[in-house]
Amino acid sequence: MLKKVDIRFIKKPDELKLKNPILIEGLPGIGHVGKLVADHLVKELNAQLVVRIHSHYFPPQVIVLENGTVRLPVNEVYAWKSNGAAPDLLILVGDFQSISSEGHFELANAYLEIAKLFEVKRIYTLGGYGVGRFVEEPYVIGAANKYELVEEMKKYGIRFEPGEPGGGIIGAAGLLLGMSMLEGIEAVCLMGVTSGYMVDPKSAKAVLDVLTKILNLEVSKEALEQRAKEMEKIISQIKEMHEITMQQWRSDEDLRYFR
Amino acid sequence: MLKKVDIRFIKKPDELKLKNPILIEGLPGIGHVGKLVADHLVKELNAQLVVRIHSHYFPPQVIVLENGTVRLPVNEVYAWKSNGAAPDLLILVGDFQSISSEGHFELANAYLEIAKLFEVKRIYTLGGYGVGRFVEEPYVIGAANKYELVEEMKKYGIRFEPGEPGGGIIGAAGLLLGMSMLEGIEAVCLMGVTSGYMVDPKSAKAVLDVLTKILNLEVSKEALEQRAKEMEKIISQIKEMHEITMQQWRSDEDLRYFR
Amino acid sequence: MLKKVDIRFIKKPDELKLKNPILIEGLPGIGHVGKLVADHLVKELNAQLVVRIHSHYFPPQVIVLENGTVRLPVNEVYAWKSNGAAPDLLILVGDFQSISSEGHFELANAYLEIAKLFEVKRIYTLGGYGVGRFVEEPYVIGAANKYELVEEMKKYGIRFEPGEPGGGIIGAAGLLLGMSMLEGIEAVCLMGVTSGYMVDPKSAKAVLDVLTKILNLEVSKEALEQRAKEMEKIISQIKEMHEITMQQWRSDEDLRYFR
Amino acid sequence: MLKKVDIRFIKKPDELKLKNPILIEGLPGIGHVGKLVADHLVKELNAQLVVRIHSHYFPPQVIVLENGTVRLPVNEVYAWKSNGAAPDLLILVGDFQSISSEGHFELANAYLEIAKLFEVKRIYTLGGYGVGRFVEEPYVIGAANKYELVEEMKKYGIRFEPGEPGGGIIGAAGLLLGMSMLEGIEAVCLMGVTSGYMVDPKSAKAVLDVLTKILNLEVSKEALEQRAKEMEKIISQIKEMHEITMQQWRSDEDLRYFR
Repeated sequence: MLKKVDIRFIKKPDELKLKNPILIEGLPGIGHVGKLVADHLVKELNAQLVVRIHSHYFPPQVIVLENGTVRLPVNEVYAWKSNGAAPDLLILVGDFQSISSEGHFELANAYLEIAKLFEVKRIYTLGGYGVGRFVEEPYVIGAANKYELVEEMKKYGIRFEPGEPGGGIIGAAGLLLGMSMLEGIEAVCLMGVTSGYMVDPKSAKAVLDVLTKILNLEVSKEALEQRAKEMEKIISQIKEMHEITMQQWRSDEDLRYFR
Repeated sequence: MLKKVDIRFIKKPDELKLKNPILIEGLPGIGHVGKLVADHLVKELNAQLVVRIHSHYFPPQVIVLENGTVRLPVNEVYAWKSNGAAPDLLILVGDFQSISSEGHFELANAYLEIAKLFEVKRIYTLGGYGVGRFVEEPYVIGAANKYELVEEMKKYGIRFEPGEPGGGIIGAAGLLLGMSMLEGIEAVCLMGVTSGYMVDPKSAKAVLDVLTKILNLEVSKEALEQRAKEMEKIISQIKEMHEITMQQWRSDEDLRYFR
Repeated sequence: MLKKVDIRFIKKPDELKLKNPILIEGLPGIGHVGKLVADHLVKELNAQLVVRIHSHYFPPQVIVLENGTVRLPVNEVYAWKSNGAAPDLLILVGDFQSISSEGHFELANAYLEIAKLFEVKRIYTLGGYGVGRFVEEPYVIGAANKYELVEEMKKYGIRFEPGEPGGGIIGAAGLLLGMSMLEGIEAVCLMGVTSGYMVDPKSAKAVLDVLTKILNLEVSKEALEQRAKEMEKIISQIKEMHEITMQQWRSDEDLRYFR
Repeated sequence: MLKKVDIRFIKKPDELKLKNPILIEGLPGIGHVGKLVADHLVKELNAQLVVRIHSHYFPPQVIVLENGTVRLPVNEVYAWKSNGAAPDLLILVGDFQSISSEGHFELANAYLEIAKLFEVKRIYTLGGYGVGRFVEEPYVIGAANKYELVEEMKKYGIRFEPGEPGGGIIGAAGLLLGMSMLEGIEAVCLMGVTSGYMVDPKSAKAVLDVLTKILNLEVSKEALEQRAKEMEKIISQIKEMHEITMQQWRSDEDLRYFR
């Protein structure tokens, strides 16, 4: 029997003995920026699966894998025990966010219940900030659930633009910020500026850079850099084609005067 | 854990010792007329926050503030203790109404539960009445949940047009009227006539004028008048541009006969 | 506190002492055929209000009445105690049907709970059957929840066309038929054939004729006949205008050959 | 009172004494491939009705039958006791799948509860795989909820194309696969490749061929073959008409050069 929000622990909090873990959320969203960063961290840190969340709020389907087997849409929490300067981490990743409006709240409630069980005191939610044009040098804008955090984040070069994003921060990245306030948990949202047109590993790289600096975390960034380079090639091809089309169109326009 | 409709009291009814308070509702709606009036009252009366309502029926997002912090969408009740001829007031304001149809009923239930805790005997709901054209001299039309109130309100110049609004009164302004009947609470809806095209502080001013007269309430109206003047400038510019476009179009039409 | 489906009894079943009452349902639907018939019966029989049903599944609004007061959307059950050959009646009328798919089931459950409290053994649901063209002589097609009823209804001239309506019978008129089967209650749906373009009192008159014959019920039909005549005038005007437009269009077509 | 998911047993599991029954699901979907196969099996095996499922998640209507009676939308489970080499079968068929996203999960929960009561250890879900063009020789692609099953199924000529269907498997056919994993039940989805434009008995025949081979089941296929032949005639007519239209269009194009 699958519950509306169905939380299954692979490891219990007391088995893991994490010390003041920090929760990082990176679910699908604009430019898949948050997802790229969080998936990268899980892989590079070889983090350990601790919670699986299925839900009636995910699309009613299974995903077919390369080997012909399937899996239910899932959100997962991975744990990483630090042996250095960085804090212990919990990383929330997954296939989907809720497809209904109310489901977003139910799922955010679930994520926070898990965070509380692990005694999380701070959350970083990751996302993209779509600006509707290609961005040469992506940067990271922030939002936080208390002003002291805004001040702290500015030191890392994170920009806070008054009232931006103007449409608010939608989905898990936003709700975790707002709802964690009611639980006394600090939270920051880090948004990589991105076109919003396509998956953006370059913007994800910018977020990863900032996040690793904040967390004092050493992690290889090569895989993400590689993907960023490939995407840059694709984008420069798109731009080139666009330029050709525009020139063609302009010369057609010119000819009209002679018709 | 955020409940579907999550009511958090900042002050309990017996701490406030309000005497027969009147509830004023001004949530977002047509021309933001009701919201403008209620927000203005909260500010000018320096009313005190007493209840915060969050809900799964609001959009699943946070709002980003000027200083880089965020807040969950909220509806709030403010209290004002009169020291003069006016009655004590509770004022319901907020960011959003429900985004689902059923949520409107759940939230109206919540507002009425709060009203009953404060022993509210009368409610004024505020809104706009969109007429689809710019209105030079906005006036206020009314609707009430018992006929004696219709009679009473007519004395203040409020118009009651048979069966208007023909499409009913939608959302909190309407449901509070209808649902308070079942609780034995009197309620009146005051609707400022407005184009429905844009935020309308002039129409809000008309509602405020009537409401303060009814309530015997002295309050500065300057801020709202100022916004009304600014909006009037914008509208006269729009009208001017429209007139130019229409003339251009007419002369183009004329020319067609010669082609 | 308004419940999702909120049933309020004005009179309890044992106060009314109805004998084997028949339930007639006439809620809004295609051509408002069912509603016209049921409203007509309530008025002409001077039936007595016994149950009010409000619901979160109705539109989130109030309806404004002619005198400036409002009312919540409502479904109502009226009772009529026969003193002649006709059976006692319960008549279900109202402003709206559910606006959500699931709400239809919840409301039908409520109607059947009420029917069972009154020991209803047979239900007639009334509706329109839209055929997409104006119908000179409307007739009544039927559907029933057991075959004996089909046979019985054929005697009254009700037509049963195999598998029609092909799209099923949607809403209360259909669900009451299907769900009453599970409660051991007999039910017939009577559908007046109608264009489906507008309110159709003529089709309603056809349903009323058949229903009064079935029920052995004497009731003035004048008001409905009057409305039917008015509507016929409007329709003949529409047809005339349509004819003129078509002729104009045809002569324009003809002219094209000469251009 | 009809429950949201309303399960009514006609026969209880212990009355039937099925031995390790296999559940076959064939509800409406792409090309009605699964439904055609499952309905065919129920009929040809003369399987016995054991469970009826009604639900608020089905469309709010009744279906009108040929004889003028109606029935509520239903999903049904039929049982067949083997007397030969084939295993005992439970076959899930029905009028509709859920019309809401969440309803798909609730219904899949119900199907699995029933499967567990009957001690089902393996499920075959049947469906169509739409490829957007007419398919001369339909074949069957598969997906399974564990890798051993993929291996096993390949022996029967079922194709497993990496990550296909790319959009996942939606509805009951997919969810039963994913959710049965959590209950320790093996499950395979067999999808007949089909255009996706129309009901496809030929594709259904391909699925039936494979399924009977897997199950060691002897069953007449004539009825389905007959329907497949009729459909092939219709499709060849459609193709012919399409060809004529294309040629006409091409010659019109040619003529343009001369205008």
